[in-house]
Amino acid sequence: MTQRQTSAPRGRWRGDLPVAEIAQLAGVSQPTVSKVLNGRTGVGETTRRRVESLLREHGYRRPVRTLGAAGIEVLMSGMLGAIAIEVVRGVEDVAAAQDLTVCLTDIGRRTAVGRPWIEPLLLRRPVGVIAAFAGFTSEHLQLLEANQIPVVTLDPMGDLHPTPSVGSNNWSGALAATRHLLALGHRRIAVITGPVRDLAARARLDGFRAGLDAADVPFDEDLRRSGVFTFEDGRDLGLELLRHPDPPTAVVCGDDLQALGVYEAARISGLRIPDDLSVVGFDDIDHCAWAGPPMTTVRQPFAEMGAAAAELVLDLAAGDRPAQTRVELGAALIVRGSTAPPPAAG
Amino acid sequence: MTQRQTSAPRGRWRGDLPVAEIAQLAGVSQPTVSKVLNGRTGVGETTRRRVESLLREHGYRRPVRTLGAAGIEVLMSGMLGAIAIEVVRGVEDVAAAQDLTVCLTDIGRRTAVGRPWIEPLLLRRPVGVIAAFAGFTSEHLQLLEANQIPVVTLDPMGDLHPTPSVGSNNWSGALAATRHLLALGHRRIAVITGPVRDLAARARLDGFRAGLDAADVPFDEDLRRSGVFTFEDGRDLGLELLRHPDPPTAVVCGDDLQALGVYEAARISGLRIPDDLSVVGFDDIDHCAWAGPPMTTVRQPFAEMGAAAAELVLDLAAGDRPAQTRVELGAALIVRGSTAPPPAAG
Repeated sequence: MTQRQTSAPRGRWRGDLPVAEIAQLAGVSQPTVSKVLNGRTGVGETTRRRVESLLREHGYRRPVRTLGAAGIEVLMSGMLGAIAIEVVRGVEDVAAAQDLTVCLTDIGRRTAVGRPWIEPLLLRRPVGVIAAFAGFTSEHLQLLEANQIPVVTLDPMGDLHPTPSVGSNNWSGALAATRHLLALGHRRIAVITGPVRDLAARARLDGFRAGLDAADVPFDEDLRRSGVFTFEDGRDLGLELLRHPDPPTAVVCGDDLQALGVYEAARISGLRIPDDLSVVGFDDIDHCAWAGPPMTTVRQPFAEMGAAAAELVLDLAAGDRPAQTRVELGAALIVRGSTAPPPAAG
Repeated sequence: MTQRQTSAPRGRWRGDLPVAEIAQLAGVSQPTVSKVLNGRTGVGETTRRRVESLLREHGYRRPVRTLGAAGIEVLMSGMLGAIAIEVVRGVEDVAAAQDLTVCLTDIGRRTAVGRPWIEPLLLRRPVGVIAAFAGFTSEHLQLLEANQIPVVTLDPMGDLHPTPSVGSNNWSGALAATRHLLALGHRRIAVITGPVRDLAARARLDGFRAGLDAADVPFDEDLRRSGVFTFEDGRDLGLELLRHPDPPTAVVCGDDLQALGVYEAARISGLRIPDDLSVVGFDDIDHCAWAGPPMTTVRQPFAEMGAAAAELVLDLAAGDRPAQTRVELGAALIVRGSTAPPPAAG
């Protein structure tokens, strides 16, 4: 979040830099401020830190070398298109302010067709790398470090990383979704999760369970299903749940695709959403607003996450040590038309 | 299409190039083939052309300079995320084979925040530029030409361009959609179009009218609506059509978002798709397969269009004159669950 706050003045580097003001505030001469700015020697460590701190407070940051630099590289692998483009848009917003481009490499696909990607990337000498996927190896990281290319991990999954990272709070998001259904009066709430070994899926399940426990609502293990993050699994597992002798009045899903699959299961079963069944998704991909009815879901701020990752990687490229090495943006419940009180008979 | 056919062998440049075979076929010595390959002098024009032609026939193409080159630049402006990512994936497929990256710049957003984009792009010395939007000016083009950076326009809209371009056939796609509905027995078919001055919207309307005319089915101007390419316009115009005293049994939409809006209009009106109303979209964004019911639509092959544009721009970068300067890929009808015969009473 701190990174976002300093983004506005980024564009006014050099030209309108109030060197005189900084010098006065720091109690040093203007040439001293210039020396700090240009990374030259001849300034004591304490003075240098004070000046740098004031510069940062004024929203300035060191310009990164841009000539000959391709830009910020975003690496991903098998990311859902609707999510990938949001991440890229957030990165692009920050890159634009430094006239950098955003380069996109799908590592999974390059590896699948037997093409190298790390060597060409190193030749491009990017300002920094945002690794928006889980399969980044320590060998890759060492190569980038050896080439002084900073790396930030963008991780919606919540794992720990050897690099600074940006994520969102899956546990809190699922808790908010569950509380919303409880407040509407639901007591028989089913849950469809992602793969059991996926940390994000686990965090969401834990948040769901915490919501029920806090409200003293018992959880029926019969109403829990796990699958992959697809429309098809949502549909098939949704049909299983709806065929239960005592079916749920609401379903919390592992992601929006699963939730759209539950929509389809309801349609096949002749049930209306939200009159007969409430459904909550997770992610808030574009399609949620276009679903019939528009979907209540937990929004992961992918564009903001991309922007935060870009700010962080530019800070690292400028030689700043970031105040935080793990930034988590809030996942917020977006209430639309797929949730309502349970049917009176339920 | 020709570009795609030659894509498979792209990776095996240099190492396993059958210079001896080419030399034999061309009736020249191996050093002569090498001279042509390396762009050296001392080869007659006729011989050079014959050798180049044989090289192309064998699926080889000149390697483009990659060292220090950022890659292929994709410029877009306000493109729907689901479409943009498909285009980028197609470009990425072709770029991977030459170890190039794909750089993405949203010109509309950069212009909106007052950032330059053409100068930084020129500094990056890209292999080529794919302009996937309509607002590219002749000044931009002249700058790129002066810097010997080839440009290909990716244009789903169907306009004419001063550069080589890749598109798809909007008219044929709408014709196919209309014929499909006629074959199912529909006679009262409504049409929702995009903005009237948008060439793609016009081509689709013309294809629709051609389909009706060819079947001698009169068109009721009362069943025609125009709006922007959004879910909201589809919903609002759909509601207008469904309130008509003699409502349509089918609606052909300008794009998938409008069609999803018609889904919502049907849901609000208590009508079932496809039992009470058939709906056809245009584009085949991811969401069509996840709609309830899955949507019948005209597929624009965005990934293939991106790949074709990338092949074309690499050909230009290698100094080849492309055989065609306008490539149109086919738009194919994808029949899913949103179309059925009209209700018996209709």
